[in-house]
Amino acid sequence: MSTTPLLNDRDLEFLLYEFLDSEALLERPRYQEHSREVFDATLNTAKTIAEKYFANHYAKGDANEPSFDGEKVHMIPETQDAWNAFVEAGFLAAHYDFDEGGMQMPEIVLRAAMSYISAANIASTGYPFLTLGAANLIHSFASEELKAKYLPLMMDGSATGTMALTEPNQGSALADIRSSAKPQADGTYRIFGQKMYISGGDHSLTDNIIHMVLAKIEGAPVGTKGISLFICPKVLVNDDGSLGQRNDVALAGLLHKMGYRNTTSTVLNFGEKDGAVGYLVGEPHQGLGYMFQMMNEARIGVGLGAAVLGYQGYNYSLDYARNRPQGRLPSEKDPSSPQVNIIEHADVRRMLLAQKAYVEGSMALCFYASSLFEDSNTATTEEARKQAFTLLDLITPMVKSFPSKYGLAANNHALQILGGSGYIREYPVEQYYRDNRLNPIHEGTEAIHGLDLLGRKVPMGGMAGYQALKAEMETTISEAKTMATVAPWAEALGEGMQTLDSTTMSLLGTLGKGEIDLGMANATVYLDLFGRVLVSWLWLKQAMIAERALNGDLHEQEANFYRGKLQAAQYYIRWELPEINHQADILKANDDSCFAMQDSWF
Amino acid sequence: MSTTPLLNDRDLEFLLYEFLDSEALLERPRYQEHSREVFDATLNTAKTIAEKYFANHYAKGDANEPSFDGEKVHMIPETQDAWNAFVEAGFLAAHYDFDEGGMQMPEIVLRAAMSYISAANIASTGYPFLTLGAANLIHSFASEELKAKYLPLMMDGSATGTMALTEPNQGSALADIRSSAKPQADGTYRIFGQKMYISGGDHSLTDNIIHMVLAKIEGAPVGTKGISLFICPKVLVNDDGSLGQRNDVALAGLLHKMGYRNTTSTVLNFGEKDGAVGYLVGEPHQGLGYMFQMMNEARIGVGLGAAVLGYQGYNYSLDYARNRPQGRLPSEKDPSSPQVNIIEHADVRRMLLAQKAYVEGSMALCFYASSLFEDSNTATTEEARKQAFTLLDLITPMVKSFPSKYGLAANNHALQILGGSGYIREYPVEQYYRDNRLNPIHEGTEAIHGLDLLGRKVPMGGMAGYQALKAEMETTISEAKTMATVAPWAEALGEGMQTLDSTTMSLLGTLGKGEIDLGMANATVYLDLFGRVLVSWLWLKQAMIAERALNGDLHEQEANFYRGKLQAAQYYIRWELPEINHQADILKANDDSCFAMQDSWF
Repeated sequence: MSTTPLLNDRDLEFLLYEFLDSEALLERPRYQEHSREVFDATLNTAKTIAEKYFANHYAKGDANEPSFDGEKVHMIPETQDAWNAFVEAGFLAAHYDFDEGGMQMPEIVLRAAMSYISAANIASTGYPFLTLGAANLIHSFASEELKAKYLPLMMDGSATGTMALTEPNQGSALADIRSSAKPQADGTYRIFGQKMYISGGDHSLTDNIIHMVLAKIEGAPVGTKGISLFICPKVLVNDDGSLGQRNDVALAGLLHKMGYRNTTSTVLNFGEKDGAVGYLVGEPHQGLGYMFQMMNEARIGVGLGAAVLGYQGYNYSLDYARNRPQGRLPSEKDPSSPQVNIIEHADVRRMLLAQKAYVEGSMALCFYASSLFEDSNTATTEEARKQAFTLLDLITPMVKSFPSKYGLAANNHALQILGGSGYIREYPVEQYYRDNRLNPIHEGTEAIHGLDLLGRKVPMGGMAGYQALKAEMETTISEAKTMATVAPWAEALGEGMQTLDSTTMSLLGTLGKGEIDLGMANATVYLDLFGRVLVSWLWLKQAMIAERALNGDLHEQEANFYRGKLQAAQYYIRWELPEINHQADILKANDDSCFAMQDSWF
Repeated sequence: MSTTPLLNDRDLEFLLYEFLDSEALLERPRYQEHSREVFDATLNTAKTIAEKYFANHYAKGDANEPSFDGEKVHMIPETQDAWNAFVEAGFLAAHYDFDEGGMQMPEIVLRAAMSYISAANIASTGYPFLTLGAANLIHSFASEELKAKYLPLMMDGSATGTMALTEPNQGSALADIRSSAKPQADGTYRIFGQKMYISGGDHSLTDNIIHMVLAKIEGAPVGTKGISLFICPKVLVNDDGSLGQRNDVALAGLLHKMGYRNTTSTVLNFGEKDGAVGYLVGEPHQGLGYMFQMMNEARIGVGLGAAVLGYQGYNYSLDYARNRPQGRLPSEKDPSSPQVNIIEHADVRRMLLAQKAYVEGSMALCFYASSLFEDSNTATTEEARKQAFTLLDLITPMVKSFPSKYGLAANNHALQILGGSGYIREYPVEQYYRDNRLNPIHEGTEAIHGLDLLGRKVPMGGMAGYQALKAEMETTISEAKTMATVAPWAEALGEGMQTLDSTTMSLLGTLGKGEIDLGMANATVYLDLFGRVLVSWLWLKQAMIAERALNGDLHEQEANFYRGKLQAAQYYIRWELPEINHQADILKANDDSCFAMQDSWF
């Protein structure tokens, strides 16, 4: 079994410096002390760690998942080494300002760096990624006192973090969480309740774990308006930062996942005895809003994780197809002629090209989202920051869902290309496929994102985000129509844009008439339609860069890189985009085949 | 964890006695001693065995897969009990004539019966199913002497059977197998070579295993025309039927699959010492033709296995959706209102209805194929037998591929409905999903069936099968157009039929011009298009029966059963069939986006 190369350095360079203009960040005040060399060194450090400390136990962590003996969680030692290497490289703190002890690195550069680590071992990456998210939540919303106490532990690797939202009886419906918080005279709270599917909720990597817990303060309003956010450490922290008493948080058990196994999934009991000590973050009843910051970051992370798993399957199956002789072309009737490598078979090429279109399209989408996140914080004008935030808010449902769906579809193709070898654990592809199946579920299922998109994100602010995106797309299309190779694809995207537009207005019309349940019934189809148009746009942008580059004088290898971009764009726009036409027919008709189906008819 | 109900008795009854007229078989000479009661008793026996001996270790066989200690294969004991129960019920012999020691049971009844057993435990079913296939091959093509020696062992459960085709360096390309057979003075052969991915190639269930091996006799023609078929037992059999010396067949190792784990997948070495003793079946160099009989049977079996795995996921997720409260409808803004069961959510209903459409459509397809198989053997006129054979030959690529693709898609929906519970091994759905992923690979990958369909099955015999199927569909459509509810679906299928037709003629035109590789390039898309039209036809037929039944006076439960059929037909024809329009555009244009992609551009 060979190891799979991690992503594709040339493609990451393309995304960062051609597709996005990440070097322009150096002109912003926050990044003036950096340089392209610093960015590239960061990528290299991440890649080195990924290869040395993460890739080495990807299969082993799957075959030897964490276990709980009733007292302690046992994990393979390589997971600890990986955590240590991540911490020592400073990646837990890299995004913070210099004066906070950070490296003041831009979001987009760190996302690119982290993508190498996810590609090497998505499951072991769970611990540092959750820690980053939890720390950001504290950084943004907690009091100075809480920040001073907990952030250092999460920046120096003394503690990991979690996001403890889900409960056994509520799943996606956060309005219905039952965990309660009882105010104490000293200003702290006592937390009671059970949380489920908490990733990294217990493990053996650090002595402490900082749980970010959603709970309802006694007497709070019903629904989402009564949810508060608490810091609830596994072990209480003394004022000098040392470990104090064990808090009343207990691991009830581990859940045994199909994939993603080296990230523990836990059931946690809060307050089996006197109540778990919790510290309110920010204001009471504002917890869901705070948590959404973490979730929105996590959603880009899920999208990117799904994309890189797709990428790894693509890399592996490409290498396999290039080196596996089998069969002959249909036109070759001489059985004594030599076998061809399977990359010569048209259907294998189809599955490779589809993978390329899905995974490079997904990477472009996630990198674009990261650049919007960056811009929403550091763009030089208030207007630009707001515009970036608005766009990001709109596309977040697709950023999470598109790679989750199509990264998995890519892995499905990779597995098929390997055939029997794809189906056995002696090769890595089936693990990518199993691991990636989590992504359409966590951080909001596909359906939740469809409802969010159509019910909130599109109509929000007088369709501000939607109109802004449309304007961006129209600019690209006008420009592309003047070019030689990409013009027909710009034409097709223009039609796709109109289809999206007429479908959107039709659905909003249904909702506007008060037919809420009918209008929202096919929202998942709308999410997919929107994703196809969005990714077609990002492919058109990539193709424009490629066409321009190919007009210059290039080495053969460089020329081939750009030809590949053109072919993938052509594939996506000719083969995948047109499926929106049938989706639009269903949506505009408010087709009720599913909606009208009755329980008793199943 | 609750157990999943096995299939749906009412639906099987519908398929056997309403969709097909299986009672009419009783008029044929072979079945005159049977009755509907005998058929139903056979189904009941199978269901009882399935529940008692197969369902009990579905999860356990997955968590404790067979292992090889270098000497012996170890398996959980429940697998042995399941094998014994299957044997004792007489199912290894049931399809043979009375005078051969069988029960003279019709194919379609046995397929229905076996579907309960597959549904209970697809992996443990591998051993008896392979034995049935191997024995049929001996029954059809071996000499009386070989039949007398080996068939009794495979009918009384003393030995299992395998089909040993694949080799490490050849995969799907049978023309290139390297295993050799050296003729001996006594008329036997010595076999040398390595076989891989041989299901059931070793195990602990029986003392002997009868391998049906493809190999080339020294000096044979190159390619598929030089392949012969041999019986090669693990242990030589004495003339009195007792076990003799160990043959030179050795288990090199087990392969570790993603799913389907309780069926061993093996690497076998033939002839490491003096050569494995093999007995030629039929004529030299005719082996591939013989093997195709087994493969064609096996392909219906794979299709049905994929369909029942889909069915089990549908059953489980339906039950879950009916009993899991979570969230509220989009129109319900009061957070203190009670949660609804998730079956009330439109997107969950979509995923349930899609599953119903896929799995009941797949079952109808496989049952239809089984009835054609039956008719090809026992229809009362030569013409009817020939017609059935021709139709079956045409549709076999879809019978294998459609359920494999959409049964898996159904499992994907089931997993998604369960959310986090779908992703963990504490629930059965992720195992269905893992197990079902094998089906698009074995017995010919999806691509192989696309090539077979477009390159052989459609043009064969002056398009005889194709024209016969078209005539059948047109008859259904004409009839359906006169009915109230189903008329618009008949209209849609009529258009779909025309689309299939114009696409077919366009592709055959390209091939006719000698552009073989280009014309065959998108054959997998053609396979999917054909499958959608075929399954739409089978849904229209089911809907016609439902509409007629609903015109009568029915109990509510019965009426709901038929309403469900109508709604699933509507869903399939409105949501899934129209995707052929875009597929047809690609195919008619001979779109070369994938075909023209170059290795160096990836």
